[in-house]
Parts: sequence; structure tokens; C-alpha cells
Amino acid sequence: MTIAIIGGTGPQGQGLALRFARAGVPVALGSRDGARAAEIGKDLMAQLGEGAAFITGLANEDATKAADELVILAVPFAGHNATLAALKPHLAGKIVVDIVVPLAEGDPKKVTMPPEGSATEAAQALLGPDIPVVGALHNVSATTLKNLDWDINCDILVCGNSLPARKSVMALIEKLGVNAYNAGDAEAARCIEAITPILIRINISKQVPFTHAGIKIWAPDH
Amino acid sequence: MTIAIIGGTGPQGQGLALRFARAGVPVALGSRDGARAAEIGKDLMAQLGEGAAFITGLANEDATKAADELVILAVPFAGHNATLAALKPHLAGKIVVDIVVPLAEGDPKKVTMPPEGSATEAAQALLGPDIPVVGALHNVSATTLKNLDWDINCDILVCGNSLPARKSVMALIEKLGVNAYNAGDAEAARCIEAITPILIRINISKQVPFTHAGIKIWAPDH
Repeated sequence: MTIAIIGGTGPQGQGLALRFARAGVPVALGSRDGARAAEIGKDLMAQLGEGAAFITGLANEDATKAADELVILAVPFAGHNATLAALKPHLAGKIVVDIVVPLAEGDPKKVTMPPEGSATEAAQALLGPDIPVVGALHNVSATTLKNLDWDINCDILVCGNSLPARKSVMALIEKLGVNAYNAGDAEAARCIEAITPILIRINISKQVPFTHAGIKIWAPDH
Repeated sequence: MTIAIIGGTGPQGQGLALRFARAGVPVALGSRDGARAAEIGKDLMAQLGEGAAFITGLANEDATKAADELVILAVPFAGHNATLAALKPHLAGKIVVDIVVPLAEGDPKKVTMPPEGSATEAAQALLGPDIPVVGALHNVSATTLKNLDWDINCDILVCGNSLPARKSVMALIEKLGVNAYNAGDAEAARCIEAITPILIRINISKQVPFTHAGIKIWAPDH
């Protein structure tokens, strides 16, 4: 089942492409510039061993068409709405997985949420009720994703108004060997997206002995 | 250094009183009903061993006056603003630690944020700039707090507009043997408070093998 990653040539998109291809999921890697996507797709394939699925670099529109069901949106927030509006005619019957965090301009330790409340809610409002939007994968560091020797050190909170769509996305994410949790409807994205700048603040702080931390749902061990 | 816990006879307040007293911090446990607070204070003391600090049950106003610096607000959200307005004359020179989560009425799997954005921001707006408000301790389960045989299985995200006030609160929380992280200014409470209903949703779900989970900032282990 081929997935698309729109804006897939950015660090987050590249990292996800590597991880999904290694897990056996074919990836259509989209970019505004199809030729650049093709080149980066080849570079990424060169990092993967035998048995990985294929990463094909394409223009965003062609990558969207190539997706069987799941279209991951990984553009900067500045391009979030315009990209979705352009792709909308090709999204019927598909699920949009919105991983975008509306970081504040000039301060990645803060968010500036859109009037709808979150990027996921803005996407759902723009696409209308027939194209389900699922928010997920906001809090995982691109550096971690791109380093295939590291385990992914976070759990994934998944939200959206369609429960079947959430379940499809959770099943995809679990192929990466991580826990995905159902966090409820799209409104939960107001929280989940805003965890990312808090993690960025902590990770760049000199007060902590680590970088690239994620969050984990931490069960009692008694 | 005595701390006050306003609304301290609720489950979260009782759990915090036990934990802080066990860690050697004297607690003025406040309630609208001072006699009831005194009774519960005695019950809690009976659960603590030798060497614990004292828990004194008082009316909310007297508990506030008894606090040297830190006043923890642990009332239900319905009483959040009225309680603060009543206590405001006694809060000069003190720091309010707001642990309140504005859970949606009838659905603890959602929040209904006040117009200010979060309970912490509402408190800061109500008290004015001279009384610092710090949001903290939102995501720790009362059941976990009250069971002294359990470790506290979560990290604590601390936010507020005053950095010195945040640092005082982080130092207090670390006495419980947990990690406290600086999550930035009061606006971060929009995220931090909203983590609680997501945890409630996950904890009551039949899809997970645990209850009472918290969140952890999870550093890579490479």
C-alpha cells in the first residue's frame, strides 16, 4: 500500500520516508519540484538495505495520486493551507495525515495557532467533511527519524474526527515499531501540536543532559 | 517552608498533601469548610510515618495566610475564578501554583478552555501582574499521588510568565523525586492542561493494558 508524503523533501518528510520504506511501505515522496524529489528519493534509497520498499520522488500532485489511501502532509505551516487547497481535487477517497505544527514565526518554542484552533482543524475545515484529516506524528524529532540506528523515542498521539481514519493511521504508524494512541477528535490537535514547541524548548535548554527528547505515555510500573 | 493547598480536601489536593508532607514540607490544607479540612488533615497524618512534616487543615483563607510563599490551587474548575477572587487580598508576595484543568462538563476526555486560553492564564489575568501564577502538576493521577507505595510515574511540565516563580515551583516539585521541566510562559498551559483529558481518554480505554498513566519527557537512549 503506497503512501504519499507531501513536502517530503524536508527533514521530517525524509525521515518518515526512510522509516516507512524500511518497514516495507512504498512511499511516493512529493515536492513542489518533482525533479528534486526524484533526486532525494534516490539518495534515501541508497541509505536503505535489501528488502526495503521503494521511495519514488514525484511532484506533490503526482505523489497524491500515487497514494492508495494515506497522504501525509509534511510542509511548513506557511504552505499548509495553500498546499491542501491545490491537492483537494485529488484527495477524494483518501485520508490526510497532518503532521504540521504551526510554530510561531521566529520562535520555535511557541505556536501560533490558526483561527480554527490547530493545523489539523484548519485542514479539516478546508477539505470539508468528506475527506478525513488525522493529526499525528507531530512530536517526533526529524534527527531521530533520519538516524536509522536510533529507536524512535516517543509515542504517537493520533487525533481526528473520523475514528476509522484514526485507526488506519494508527495501524500505519505501528509499522514503525512505536505505540500510537487514540487521542480523540481533531480538537485534541490544539494540545498535541503544541507539545512540539515545549519539547523544542526543553531540548535546546542547557538545563537538561539530552537533546531530541520525545514524549511517552508512561504507565505505572507497580 | 509551609505551602498551602487550596481545595486540598479533593483527591488531587489530598494526594499532594501526603506527598509533600512525606517529603518534609509542612502543608496548610485549605477547604471552604475549615472543620472538614482539619478532620481530613488528621486522617492524612495517620497515613504518614515518623519524620513527615505536619498537615494542618484550615479554612482556605487561613491556609493562604499560613503559606510562606507557595499557594497551590486545587479546586474544581467551576470554583477556580471565584476562589482566586476571594483569596486575592491575601496573595500579595506569594506565588499561585495553578493545577486546575478545565475539563468539559460531562466529558472528562475533553477540555473547555476559558476565554483567556487556559486556567493558568485566567488566573494570571484575574490576579494581575504582581502575583505570579505558575501552572504545574496537571497531569499526575490523584490515585497515584494517594498511593504512597507507588512512584509518581510522570514528569511535570511547569509554565508561567515569571521565570523566578517557575524556578521556585520546580524546586518544590523536585522534592517529590520527580523531574520538573520549564515549559515556558503561561500560554503553554493551553497545551499542558489539555494533556490531562487525553491521558484520561487513554487510561479509560479498553485498548491499553494500564490505567493512571502519565507523560514522560523521553530522551533517546543511544
